[in-house]
Amino acid sequence: MKVKLESRLLGANELIAHNNRNMFSSRGILVINLMSSPGSGKTTILECTIQELVKQIKIGVIEGDLYTDQDARRIEQQGVEVVQINTEGTCHLDAQMICHAYQKLDASKPQLLFIENVGNLVCPAEFDLGEDLRVVVISTAEGNDKVTKYPLVFRRADVVLVNKTDLLPYTDFDVEKVKNDIGLINPSASIFLVSGRTGEGMEAWICWLLQQSKNKLLSMNGTSYLQMAEGRK
Amino acid sequence: MKVKLESRLLGANELIAHNNRNMFSSRGILVINLMSSPGSGKTTILECTIQELVKQIKIGVIEGDLYTDQDARRIEQQGVEVVQINTEGTCHLDAQMICHAYQKLDASKPQLLFIENVGNLVCPAEFDLGEDLRVVVISTAEGNDKVTKYPLVFRRADVVLVNKTDLLPYTDFDVEKVKNDIGLINPSASIFLVSGRTGEGMEAWICWLLQQSKNKLLSMNGTSYLQMAEGRK
Repeated sequence: MKVKLESRLLGANELIAHNNRNMFSSRGILVINLMSSPGSGKTTILECTIQELVKQIKIGVIEGDLYTDQDARRIEQQGVEVVQINTEGTCHLDAQMICHAYQKLDASKPQLLFIENVGNLVCPAEFDLGEDLRVVVISTAEGNDKVTKYPLVFRRADVVLVNKTDLLPYTDFDVEKVKNDIGLINPSASIFLVSGRTGEGMEAWICWLLQQSKNKLLSMNGTSYLQMAEGRK
Repeated sequence: MKVKLESRLLGANELIAHNNRNMFSSRGILVINLMSSPGSGKTTILECTIQELVKQIKIGVIEGDLYTDQDARRIEQQGVEVVQINTEGTCHLDAQMICHAYQKLDASKPQLLFIENVGNLVCPAEFDLGEDLRVVVISTAEGNDKVTKYPLVFRRADVVLVNKTDLLPYTDFDVEKVKNDIGLINPSASIFLVSGRTGEGMEAWICWLLQQSKNKLLSMNGTSYLQMAEGRK
């Protein structure tokens, strides 16, 4: 019975996620779902990323957290609009929460929307939010076995950010092993080594992200042109 | 409806946890539920702890993991009996899983039973397993805000192990702030600073744990004496 209910809940979520995706696409918004364990550095990476991009592109942020607005207050200081979702103990964001939260951001017309999920490497992986890209952050302090132990989130990732490279000299983290583990279950995932603390490696990730946003806008325009062309037939 | 089902599931779990606790108490077994984010160092701490205690006390381990037996294989090398629970994607252990798993350990008559929960700082906190002590591990690489952002697991903890103290010089982790945050929501929690990697601080934690196990046996014997005395009346 538990499984059936879960599968029905996930079915409903897929439907709303599909609607979210269509809505975001019609507006040309690139949507990023940022996931990781607690303390891997999602918020710090978001701060650095926004700091570089905020002059070039209109950014909105949805912050998921169990109870507090600590991360939202950090992100607001970067001069972008932030909407807080407090899940009140629920361990993940879902598509309905995103649909509601985005209504408060729509007027500011973001081109790039970051969703920072609840810190949890298990449950958020199951819930499509209607995002374009799933970005998973893993810290070099977390050990070498996370990809094989938590495969779902890595299998579904478009990007893996290996964060806290500044701690590499002081840990047993094996970058090549982790890259190899990701490659085995998800060979198309892009991998960037970054340090949110020192800024090392952030440029490559940010350039890549900006290009994705441009591609999204182009594809929207392309679709519009196609639709117009078809309308003329 | 989701909430009602969840509350019914938790109600059933409480009942089984209560039975587990009575069964463990009747055998004088001290039961530890070890919880943390992925990569905080639960397994490494368990390795060090068992290595010190295995000559003094009979130890059993129940390993919770989504899909793999990687941690179980590490722990078995310490010469103790290990039972693996694979939750197949479920984000926490529950009392029923422990009841089943323990049946495989009972014949070896452990006095100290470690349960390593699924790596997740959110969901496991809600599920009583019938343990005596809830031990939460937090790593110094995870930032200073974990106690305020994930309050439930810390509020219900008997012990907090602040792990990876060897990384303290290379992070912004503020031990006093984190101790203070724990004190505000859970003033009776015991806090130990440890490094599973270097062994620093492990002695105090292990001595404390051994004392708890002795107290448990004494309390069982006390109860038995009382029961015998009452039976004689």
